[in-house]
Amino acid sequence: MADIDRLEKVDGFKVVGTRPNRPDGVDKVTGRARFGADIHAPGMLIGKVLRSPHPHAKILSIDTTRALALSGVKAVLTSDDFGDVPAMHQATLHNVMAHNKALYEGHAIAAVAAVDVAIARKAIKLIDVEYEILPHVTDVDAAMAEDAPLLHEDNFTSGIDPKPSKPSNIATWSEFGHGNLDEGFSQADIILEREFTTEATHQGYIEPHACLATYSEDGNSEIWCTTQGHFLVRDTCAALLDIAVSRLRVTASEIGGGFGGKTVVYLEPLALALSRKAGRPVKMVMSRSEVFRSTGPTSSSSMRVKIGVRKDGRIIAADAHLNYQSGAFGGFIAMLGAMCAYACYSLENVRATANEVLTNRPMQASYRAPGAPIVNFAVESVIDELAVELELDPIEFRLMNAAKEGDRSSYGPVFDQIGLIQTLETARDHPHYQATLAKGQARGMAVGFWFNFGGLTSVSLNVNFDGTVTVSVGRPDIGGSRAAMCQMAAEELGIPYDNVRTIIADTSSLGFNDTTDGSRTTFANGLAIIRAARGAIRDMCARAAKTWDIPEEAVEWVDGCARPCGSNAGDFEPMCIAEIARKSPKTGGPIAGHHEVNAEGAGVSFAVHIADVKVDEETGRTDICRYTVVQDAGKAIHPAYVEGQYQGGAAQGIGWALNEGYVYGDDGIMQNPGFLDYRMPVCSDLPMIEAKIIEIPNKGHPYGVRGVGETSIVPPLATVANAICSATGVRMTQIPMAPPVLLKAIEKNNKQV
Amino acid sequence: MADIDRLEKVDGFKVVGTRPNRPDGVDKVTGRARFGADIHAPGMLIGKVLRSPHPHAKILSIDTTRALALSGVKAVLTSDDFGDVPAMHQATLHNVMAHNKALYEGHAIAAVAAVDVAIARKAIKLIDVEYEILPHVTDVDAAMAEDAPLLHEDNFTSGIDPKPSKPSNIATWSEFGHGNLDEGFSQADIILEREFTTEATHQGYIEPHACLATYSEDGNSEIWCTTQGHFLVRDTCAALLDIAVSRLRVTASEIGGGFGGKTVVYLEPLALALSRKAGRPVKMVMSRSEVFRSTGPTSSSSMRVKIGVRKDGRIIAADAHLNYQSGAFGGFIAMLGAMCAYACYSLENVRATANEVLTNRPMQASYRAPGAPIVNFAVESVIDELAVELELDPIEFRLMNAAKEGDRSSYGPVFDQIGLIQTLETARDHPHYQATLAKGQARGMAVGFWFNFGGLTSVSLNVNFDGTVTVSVGRPDIGGSRAAMCQMAAEELGIPYDNVRTIIADTSSLGFNDTTDGSRTTFANGLAIIRAARGAIRDMCARAAKTWDIPEEAVEWVDGCARPCGSNAGDFEPMCIAEIARKSPKTGGPIAGHHEVNAEGAGVSFAVHIADVKVDEETGRTDICRYTVVQDAGKAIHPAYVEGQYQGGAAQGIGWALNEGYVYGDDGIMQNPGFLDYRMPVCSDLPMIEAKIIEIPNKGHPYGVRGVGETSIVPPLATVANAICSATGVRMTQIPMAPPVLLKAIEKNNKQV
Repeated sequence: MADIDRLEKVDGFKVVGTRPNRPDGVDKVTGRARFGADIHAPGMLIGKVLRSPHPHAKILSIDTTRALALSGVKAVLTSDDFGDVPAMHQATLHNVMAHNKALYEGHAIAAVAAVDVAIARKAIKLIDVEYEILPHVTDVDAAMAEDAPLLHEDNFTSGIDPKPSKPSNIATWSEFGHGNLDEGFSQADIILEREFTTEATHQGYIEPHACLATYSEDGNSEIWCTTQGHFLVRDTCAALLDIAVSRLRVTASEIGGGFGGKTVVYLEPLALALSRKAGRPVKMVMSRSEVFRSTGPTSSSSMRVKIGVRKDGRIIAADAHLNYQSGAFGGFIAMLGAMCAYACYSLENVRATANEVLTNRPMQASYRAPGAPIVNFAVESVIDELAVELELDPIEFRLMNAAKEGDRSSYGPVFDQIGLIQTLETARDHPHYQATLAKGQARGMAVGFWFNFGGLTSVSLNVNFDGTVTVSVGRPDIGGSRAAMCQMAAEELGIPYDNVRTIIADTSSLGFNDTTDGSRTTFANGLAIIRAARGAIRDMCARAAKTWDIPEEAVEWVDGCARPCGSNAGDFEPMCIAEIARKSPKTGGPIAGHHEVNAEGAGVSFAVHIADVKVDEETGRTDICRYTVVQDAGKAIHPAYVEGQYQGGAAQGIGWALNEGYVYGDDGIMQNPGFLDYRMPVCSDLPMIEAKIIEIPNKGHPYGVRGVGETSIVPPLATVANAICSATGVRMTQIPMAPPVLLKAIEKNNKQV
Repeated sequence: MADIDRLEKVDGFKVVGTRPNRPDGVDKVTGRARFGADIHAPGMLIGKVLRSPHPHAKILSIDTTRALALSGVKAVLTSDDFGDVPAMHQATLHNVMAHNKALYEGHAIAAVAAVDVAIARKAIKLIDVEYEILPHVTDVDAAMAEDAPLLHEDNFTSGIDPKPSKPSNIATWSEFGHGNLDEGFSQADIILEREFTTEATHQGYIEPHACLATYSEDGNSEIWCTTQGHFLVRDTCAALLDIAVSRLRVTASEIGGGFGGKTVVYLEPLALALSRKAGRPVKMVMSRSEVFRSTGPTSSSSMRVKIGVRKDGRIIAADAHLNYQSGAFGGFIAMLGAMCAYACYSLENVRATANEVLTNRPMQASYRAPGAPIVNFAVESVIDELAVELELDPIEFRLMNAAKEGDRSSYGPVFDQIGLIQTLETARDHPHYQATLAKGQARGMAVGFWFNFGGLTSVSLNVNFDGTVTVSVGRPDIGGSRAAMCQMAAEELGIPYDNVRTIIADTSSLGFNDTTDGSRTTFANGLAIIRAARGAIRDMCARAAKTWDIPEEAVEWVDGCARPCGSNAGDFEPMCIAEIARKSPKTGGPIAGHHEVNAEGAGVSFAVHIADVKVDEETGRTDICRYTVVQDAGKAIHPAYVEGQYQGGAAQGIGWALNEGYVYGDDGIMQNPGFLDYRMPVCSDLPMIEAKIIEIPNKGHPYGVRGVGETSIVPPLATVANAICSATGVRMTQIPMAPPVLLKAIEKNNKQV
């Protein structure tokens, strides 16, 4: 009998660790895959949003008369169409549609649904809004100033005891750490204290937000949308529109990138509310400009980092203070930044504090390891500088201070089995790190950390009569996870990969699943799939036992077949899954396995990145000549997609380091809301990124899986900055290190030298 | 703790037995519901079928050159595109696309996929088919003649031992019964032997067959279609196209009627095969003419019935022989007819035999209680005639011979608790039967039987965080079953009806479900839902126990809440479903219940119909002046929809009795393939049909549910015929009793009198 709770690592994997084709591959390369904008419904209307032209303005009145009078307009929506919502959903509601005040340029003010896009666009222009323009603030430090314009008069910083006596733009204060900083710094031989800033970047997914919603008069509703979490879309929209969760069915389309930015709602509640008013399905698709101006970029920041070391290379005290700009509403990303600040290090005296700061910018959203790359840039820059001061190899310096199993982490919990030391050692011994530098090139490295999450997970596994298997999961596949799900089910059941198909079920067909974020999918879905498969195996063994008329204990499952085991079991030919399935109608009915769990035990992971760069000192342009990622995957279910995650994170981090960034004018208007002016890296900007997988099993998963998707974006900012410093002698304290910025820094440095 | 296996009838229903609005109602009346033809995919092609103009012809060659050369044509399909299939699927394959021979007018010969419907239609005409016309046969008796043209040279009647020495058009022989007929008839005081014929009718669903299929190069495929059984569509298409079941995902649209006719595939395999050839999604929609000429009508028949009674009114022997015309391929409907022939009666000597006869007509498909109305017309006509001879009230005569619990049925099994006697008594005492006839009117009645089925069933039930519940089932809702599913889940969980929503899951999101037919849905889904709900209740009680830190046994579930029970359980406030659900992330994860079963114990049901008619002897037109259905539902979960089933079956049966019927010319071509010439009853043809529900619980279901959908179409043919006989003195032996036919019979009778 299969033990459903056997959670040790399985030896001798047959399917796990191979590199089969991904199930969604062909449809995506042929264009047949249906993304958010590819869904149609008979009689559907087109919805469009009127957005604020002002970064901060009181909405005195909205007159929809002229818009409603336009032929073909079926509904106009304003914040008046929404009622009160629970406190936890208020920021979401007021972000998707401005309530009394426009808080950023691009903030939704009203929306229309019309019979076609031309009429919808025209109608938007016929909505008359009277604004009272207010002073605005988009800079994180300026927003904390005593006299800064307040976004929310009722915002009192949370996380401080006692509660502040007056409102401010600081939404949340966070603090992590342990030990005695003063004592630590007093023992230090070298103390470095540095300040850093970073600019906001966007997740830059190719597919804009898109959805189709239909609301029936009896309250039964449906949404199709591009999202990382359709259960979250369901529960949020149900709360915003005050409908029962069971009434709303949400189907996730294929997704053209999300990277954290599709973990929140924007259009979905508007489309559903428009459909409720108009009585017809409503489709909404954002333009690129809307994506930039109205959806979640990550935070900009200002940071101060102070680290003290002894001459022997031991870090004796580390402090950091972070100010993360969160846009018009507060979140949790500054907190995550503070938690990640020193997670790579084994420290006795450590503290990281953070302010989440409100500004007149779009509400920040998660972006791949949210908060971590920002603080990592600051900390790993100072660590790098310390290594130089100490005349230590930067990897050796980190090895001397690396976090290990049993350490109390800088954010609280004690680490279980982790792979940082092995990752650093592998990086040190890697051909890239050992290679002699090409002429004119310089090398930098950094180490990075991400938690990885588990969370609420429901899966079903159904055995078809031909012995093939369908796995039903509830997290959109943003990185090839369907392949990994098929592999784990096939591994457990002992059948070929091609005999398993995994689909993403809609919210009415499966129990709740947390969003695809936090690098949780392969870990948590996998855990549940393995358990569901073991449940099905237990059932199949029982059916074989029934057929053979022997005790269930006398049947074991080997290589996709039930067979008698033990001396008294009897002599029966093994019954394989196809035979058991074919006979299942006569042995009780369809065979299935289900599992619902709040998956705990996700394993943290660490990455070391190495970059060789060449800096053109005449233009300030940095070329990445060679780049290597070494990262602990716990166990790589599908190594090619793990490598893809490593490469993708690195590519995005390099873009963040060198070019990307929101540009605001004094008028509070974003000046580069398009891919021509917001410059993301393209293939020709990047070398082939080498990816090296380390496998230090996570004890919380039967196969040892850790999350892999996010850690890889953490080290690139510092890695590139450290390489640039090595190349130019200039320690950059500002991100992006775009050519004009770097050129100016080089010129300033040259003058000083 | 809830006992998952508690299957007794629950007393004091709160939700079951009420009449809430159906969940799909608003979308259907507003036109928002998406039916088979309402699904679109980007880049989709339109598929059309070339159909045989000949009832029987050898296909000498098919030249697709000209069609393929037409700009916009992306694929042409012939039977060559399909490989060998398992024997059980061969008839289906050869019916959806002719193999060597066209077997009926309308038989699919080839199909095209093109960029629009106009080009597809044009392309069809450019396919050059060379036929060798063969002699044909469309009449059931002619097809059994020695020299009849053979449809299949390799057809040897099955069910006969020894196997016949030469092929014929008789596909299957069936025989049921027990006792000694000769002995029985020898004891009879009166023996009547009569012959009857019926013409084929069509299910007449308003929505024609429609589907959209997409086949990816990697074998992953999807179909959206209007069907009564998307799992059957999946498994059949997978077999016909030789793909793994797991590779094909089928979603059922809303359905605009099926009545048995959407339990088989027609377009689906063609669309999928066209998509495989063309590399693009393919949509296909039948015209009404195609529906008539190519999809499943019921059988036509010729029958002989012989019944012997004693003077005391006891039926002492009963024999019947049925010839059911099955179209171009054999099936099982003649067998079902033979099984139903005498099921209403408690008989010591009984036999029913049946031939399933091949003809050059479209392959018959199930039509609501398939086979039963036909034989019931014959048997109940003779029973009626016997009552007249015996000068007994027809209900009293039936009561004297009615089947009851413990009787061996005429088709084999011993009856469990059944409600025929109560149904007859209720009909006898019904105001309709007691009412004095209006002038010029006459009354008839008949009794009918149907088995009702159970079968393979999988359901999932998920509890949302707000305490509302989603039930996921796998059988398309053809008669409001979603409402009944919600009611049973709500009843079991102790929550309001409005807090439950039931959806039809696609084939990849749920385990296998047999098709919505055999009146199985409320019985089998309900059984599984009740058990799934009890599983969820058990889990919720366990979570409450965990929260309270008391044994699980000390928690009971009452009115939607867990509460401590027993003297030592402790004093805790009850925790209701919403609270347990909200806390579920911290008590283990999402709450769900699942159940997979081969549901046995479906309860047979009986109906008595009463009709008052008025016959215009100058035109032969029959008006139905009053009509009452009395039927045993076991337990009516949603009485309004049970009544709707009673009314719908009666309406269809009345149409069958009076007007509907396939008309063939000597050329073997159907002459009335449209609703103008194939006359279905409209509202003005019918009175309000009174529906009286009897509830004699089925012991095989926790709430006592029996199937209700089919039995109601069984008695109308005989009921109307018996009323006409009463009105005119003419015993009609032919269906339909259309005005010209009846007029002729009346005129003949008048001459004889």
